Amino acid sequence: MNTGTDTLLLQLFTIFVWAKVFAEVFERLRLPGVLGEILAGIVLGPYAAKIIDPSPSIMSMAEIGAIFLLFTVGLETSPHDLIRLGRTSINVAVAGIVLPFAAGFAFMKTQGETTHESTFVAAAMVATSVGITARVLQDMGVLKKRASRIILGAAVFDDILGMVLLAIVVSLATGAAIRWLHLGVVIGEAVGFAAFMIFVGPNVVRRMKPGLQRLSTQDAPLVLALSICMLLSVAAIKIGMAAIIGAFFAGLIFADYSPEWHLQPRVHGINEFLSPFFFFTMGARLDIHVFTSNVLVVASVISILALITKIVGCGAAVWREGWSTALKVGVGMTPRGEVALIVALIGLQLNMVSQRAYAIVIFMTSVSTLVAPPMLRYLFRNEMPRHPVVVREDEERLQVG
Amino acid sequence: MNTGTDTLLLQLFTIFVWAKVFAEVFERLRLPGVLGEILAGIVLGPYAAKIIDPSPSIMSMAEIGAIFLLFTVGLETSPHDLIRLGRTSINVAVAGIVLPFAAGFAFMKTQGETTHESTFVAAAMVATSVGITARVLQDMGVLKKRASRIILGAAVFDDILGMVLLAIVVSLATGAAIRWLHLGVVIGEAVGFAAFMIFVGPNVVRRMKPGLQRLSTQDAPLVLALSICMLLSVAAIKIGMAAIIGAFFAGLIFADYSPEWHLQPRVHGINEFLSPFFFFTMGARLDIHVFTSNVLVVASVISILALITKIVGCGAAVWREGWSTALKVGVGMTPRGEVALIVALIGLQLNMVSQRAYAIVIFMTSVSTLVAPPMLRYLFRNEMPRHPVVVREDEERLQVG
Repeated sequence: MNTGTDTLLLQLFTIFVWAKVFAEVFERLRLPGVLGEILAGIVLGPYAAKIIDPSPSIMSMAEIGAIFLLFTVGLETSPHDLIRLGRTSINVAVAGIVLPFAAGFAFMKTQGETTHESTFVAAAMVATSVGITARVLQDMGVLKKRASRIILGAAVFDDILGMVLLAIVVSLATGAAIRWLHLGVVIGEAVGFAAFMIFVGPNVVRRMKPGLQRLSTQDAPLVLALSICMLLSVAAIKIGMAAIIGAFFAGLIFADYSPEWHLQPRVHGINEFLSPFFFFTMGARLDIHVFTSNVLVVASVISILALITKIVGCGAAVWREGWSTALKVGVGMTPRGEVALIVALIGLQLNMVSQRAYAIVIFMTSVSTLVAPPMLRYLFRNEMPRHPVVVREDEERLQVG
Repeated sequence: MNTGTDTLLLQLFTIFVWAKVFAEVFERLRLPGVLGEILAGIVLGPYAAKIIDPSPSIMSMAEIGAIFLLFTVGLETSPHDLIRLGRTSINVAVAGIVLPFAAGFAFMKTQGETTHESTFVAAAMVATSVGITARVLQDMGVLKKRASRIILGAAVFDDILGMVLLAIVVSLATGAAIRWLHLGVVIGEAVGFAAFMIFVGPNVVRRMKPGLQRLSTQDAPLVLALSICMLLSVAAIKIGMAAIIGAFFAGLIFADYSPEWHLQPRVHGINEFLSPFFFFTMGARLDIHVFTSNVLVVASVISILALITKIVGCGAAVWREGWSTALKVGVGMTPRGEVALIVALIGLQLNMVSQRAYAIVIFMTSVSTLVAPPMLRYLFRNEMPRHPVVVREDEERLQVG
């Protein structure tokens, strides 16, 4: 009778179970489960085995999954830490943007590509994927370590700067003079948004507390937190940033109240249900057929450049923290993800980028995503908790002194 | 740039916030919040204020919301209770089906309707909405009371019988002789499914326990529970029942392990996020314009019949439990919901039912949904906890001795 529900549920079930089976295999191989979930998407998706072609509803759930993923990460990030580590994080972010962009642009130009195409590929090499890095660090139980907090802070600033860079690139590509004013507005908005969320946001929530207790709605804090998460995601898009940035900040402003309101286990449940759809569809979007041997060579060089420039740039920015931290931060900043894919997609839509350059970006994104987690796991090997991390309400967010 | 995400998130945010604002107003008026969420859908939906027209993605999320709603209810229902109260529940379910069906059919025939049309309207008067009743009882914090457990058990059997009745009606309407064999299969499957889940399901989970502990995936029990929830929802549809019945049974078989595995707060989080979309879209589907004064009169009579026959039939079945319990059970069984709407929708699709009969069913569904909760609240007034119910991990599921 209701065949729509039937199909949707069957696809939900199939994707969820396959993602988790691949994740389990990866975990047993001591690789991050998230890569298994992405690989499940690549293997079973429409470009390879053609077993599962995610429907629009699944795509929507994947997007919401990405939002809750970053919301959870925000909930575990103390705004005080972000302020305290802010200077370091900004240095890391800037260094990690300048080097990959310059190297990517120069190499693409030597390959005889147009300035537009080179600019787009270079811009796609810039933004670290907060989602993948955070999930890997979370899976290892090292989110509270100093290096992790620098990485997450830098990845946030990096995403903001990446979005600004994307605005610049689009502005250059379309070549309208009036865009420069628009660009100034975008930069101002992005910086203002971040500053407001970090410095003012938590105080707003604190002032709302007495009012919340007078509400008759059960579980009003969770309802408020979910509402703010969606509101800031929309707000982020409206001012030209990625929705996940807004979601991250929404988590951030509730981070200090998360233990008191038992937010973490409930949001964790939503995240546990939705995030496999995000990683699966990310894999399902990779077309493995566009790679000719020529494209593969260029893509490999770009990937290596993307890795080295990020490690060197970010590592150098925190050199004073010591060799070990510098390397962790450098490697932690290497995975590219949704932002790179969005940049490539926009370039394709604007006809500024060929299918070839698009494939190169996707390849670079995959390589950086595949290479970074095992390296991170190795670097953090002595800091991982002995036992698997179990989320418990009472220890959900340790205050780091 | 990614306008799809933009629109989706904005609609998610708007629906969530409006549903919760209406719920808050209803709670303050001492009415169940769930009615506020439905009213938000009616008022802001495409047939009234036309402010929000839920997109297909929202509809999908609403369906998944209904599934997690019933999954949560199942998690809080002990299979032992269902077995112990099974005989009583089955009596209530059968009495609550025979009386409304007979009264509805007779009245529609006196109105000069065709046998097909009368049968469909009568069939729609049969199935109690487990979703609405459960949410109201949950909101009041009386899910563990004896009357509540009888109601939920009966509502489950009632839904199963309602689905069987729907199969019979469709079979009669299409008039194929071979359908009787199919019908026998449907009945057998439904009864077998229920019996398997109640008697065998929990033991299967118990046997899986040692294997689960060997898995490397973090939070393997939650992953397993979510997978089984989706699997049984699909399975229920495949054998001709509603997905929510499968989800309820999935919750039921994990109910005994919910405290140990901390399932409840995580699943509650998913539910808290998704269920407002279900109730909002339920409201948004109501077209308030099809009601002429003539239709209103017939619809009112049908609604009154639907209320009285259910209260009398179900109440009489538990008369030995005492006046108070009988009334609670009778009233608790009155709300009709998604099953009635599905029956009406199928009738419409098969051209067995006119727009008029469709409107009558929708009216009856709304009235029973609007009338029952305040009555329930009144009847349970002395059993409600003094303080608002806060879900805590350690007291998530009280064992009723």
